Amino acid sequence: MKNLTIHDLEYLALGSTILGSGGGGNPVYEILMAQHEMGKYGPVRLLDVNELQPHDLIVPVGFMGAPLVSLEKLPSGREFVQLLQFLEKILGRPVTAILPAEIGGANAFAPLLVAGRLGLPVVDADTLGRAFPQLQMSSCNLMQISAAPAFLADGMGNVVMVQAADASTLERIARHVTMSMGSSCAAAIYLMDGIQAKRAVIPGTLSQAIALGRFIAEARVRSADPIIALVENGKGRLLGQGTLVDINQSIKNGFLEGTVKILSSQGIIEVLYQNEYLLARQEDRVLATTPDILMLFESESATPITSDSLRYGQRVALVGLPAPDLWKSPEGLALVGPRFFGYDVEYKPF
Amino acid sequence: MKNLTIHDLEYLALGSTILGSGGGGNPVYEILMAQHEMGKYGPVRLLDVNELQPHDLIVPVGFMGAPLVSLEKLPSGREFVQLLQFLEKILGRPVTAILPAEIGGANAFAPLLVAGRLGLPVVDADTLGRAFPQLQMSSCNLMQISAAPAFLADGMGNVVMVQAADASTLERIARHVTMSMGSSCAAAIYLMDGIQAKRAVIPGTLSQAIALGRFIAEARVRSADPIIALVENGKGRLLGQGTLVDINQSIKNGFLEGTVKILSSQGIIEVLYQNEYLLARQEDRVLATTPDILMLFESESATPITSDSLRYGQRVALVGLPAPDLWKSPEGLALVGPRFFGYDVEYKPF
Repeated sequence: MKNLTIHDLEYLALGSTILGSGGGGNPVYEILMAQHEMGKYGPVRLLDVNELQPHDLIVPVGFMGAPLVSLEKLPSGREFVQLLQFLEKILGRPVTAILPAEIGGANAFAPLLVAGRLGLPVVDADTLGRAFPQLQMSSCNLMQISAAPAFLADGMGNVVMVQAADASTLERIARHVTMSMGSSCAAAIYLMDGIQAKRAVIPGTLSQAIALGRFIAEARVRSADPIIALVENGKGRLLGQGTLVDINQSIKNGFLEGTVKILSSQGIIEVLYQNEYLLARQEDRVLATTPDILMLFESESATPITSDSLRYGQRVALVGLPAPDLWKSPEGLALVGPRFFGYDVEYKPF
Repeated sequence: MKNLTIHDLEYLALGSTILGSGGGGNPVYEILMAQHEMGKYGPVRLLDVNELQPHDLIVPVGFMGAPLVSLEKLPSGREFVQLLQFLEKILGRPVTAILPAEIGGANAFAPLLVAGRLGLPVVDADTLGRAFPQLQMSSCNLMQISAAPAFLADGMGNVVMVQAADASTLERIARHVTMSMGSSCAAAIYLMDGIQAKRAVIPGTLSQAIALGRFIAEARVRSADPIIALVENGKGRLLGQGTLVDINQSIKNGFLEGTVKILSSQGIIEVLYQNEYLLARQEDRVLATTPDILMLFESESATPITSDSLRYGQRVALVGLPAPDLWKSPEGLALVGPRFFGYDVEYKPF
């Protein structure tokens, strides 16, 4: 067991935003909340997956809803307190550890908003290894962890328990509940005991996100090119560089859907996104697709650009990082491959 | 305790449709299901409210959603079995009796689809005395029975428990859950013990609905004018007679909203509805408003016409029946008076 301290938070913000692949929300507000919580309650205990005990009750938590909404309807932290207290009352036993349901974007911070207050350790793991938009897209679903029961809370004293027959039905019902709660809420999904968690979660991703953020920050300090350093260190690839010349987006079915064009010296590169960047192509040639992690960086500062903050004229670098292994299997690709999102191409690692 | 038999069902259908005030759904399919259930499991025990015991667990049940949807996506009866079994598991104790959440329309039949199968008695009562479209419109809400927890089920193995801070929030969340379940589901709301139920429900309304239906049916048999008989017997008033000449309706916010015009010998009468008939007027003169029960009958047969089955050219009689007493108080009118529905008039009993 080690501790997660207030000094890790900026690195985590940078690393989790990169792993968000353009989605998952930019943790500008969540980092402030986590700093406040740690200032008040001290460091958070970080548990290694190997430390989990068979009879533990392990709960992945996260925000559900449109990231854009969360920037106006700010979370209070009470969501997660009410969520976990209700869950404990219904199940009749205490939660022993929590973890981020997804490491990508603002959701990496969800457990840190409540761990100190409730005296809970956080497991160094998540269930996606990046960000994806729907609840069935989870290592827990791939590993046959039941989607029932799941819990949702809005921090106003309203809590909903969903007993769904399968993970896709949970996604449908929970999405409607989220809308009824003003399009953002806190969620607890895929509850596990220690044995299940060891099998189903992706270990070490919190530490990895922090290490990734620190790596970029340190490259900046020593005036190395952080993007080149990232590509070399992270087994990634620089897929293109240029200027954003066209952004065509709309909110469809609750997701931010669009295409951004990059004018590069090799021609126009298009990046298609649905919250997350999902496909990059140059004319008919596919450069990379989901589940590989596609990320745009502001060229000079190596600041990651989420899909909700694209601006005309930005100088950008498009980087591909390898997908977490679990998504490369046929079962994984059925959940999160390009065809699921409506793109008629095969996944080929870049 | 008496029994409700297969012979009561047609009277109940007629009476409950009249009390539905145009809404609540026409129980054409539910009567067949109830006949089938009673054929299989025998008569249903009907409990007087006075027979309830302090430690009983009394559960009002009903369908939630658009009546028009229920005509295509037929209920199976499994909704209520899954609903009540889940509720018992969560609360850790058995349900002792059920009742219709609302007596108006198809919902009068909801408890009869499952009582025999589960061996449960049905309380001779409901919580509206008529039909209204939203969950906060209940005698239980007026009498401060908690809206939490409430349960919803779709009969496909999906159950949702809603712990809402108040009745209006329950309505908002449950409405979204209903949409996620295909716009119709089974609901259990305002759970009570025997002491609370004696205080909060409207006693005798199942018997009254059956008696009302039988009264109309018997008037038909003896060739009396059933509408005149109904008005004289039910302390109602014949508000107008004529021909439907204009029907202007649309589905708004999940409700069937419209205006129907009746060409009478005294001029044009307009009836405004939102699922239920809510206001009748002749030029600037208001004839009657919610919470009084407004009902249109086909003139010759005295068949009640629900708002989803209005047809151009029908010869109709417009009848007002007095509102259940609880809705006439200031608190009652705040929930279901004309202003709640957007009509800028005071309620005056016709």
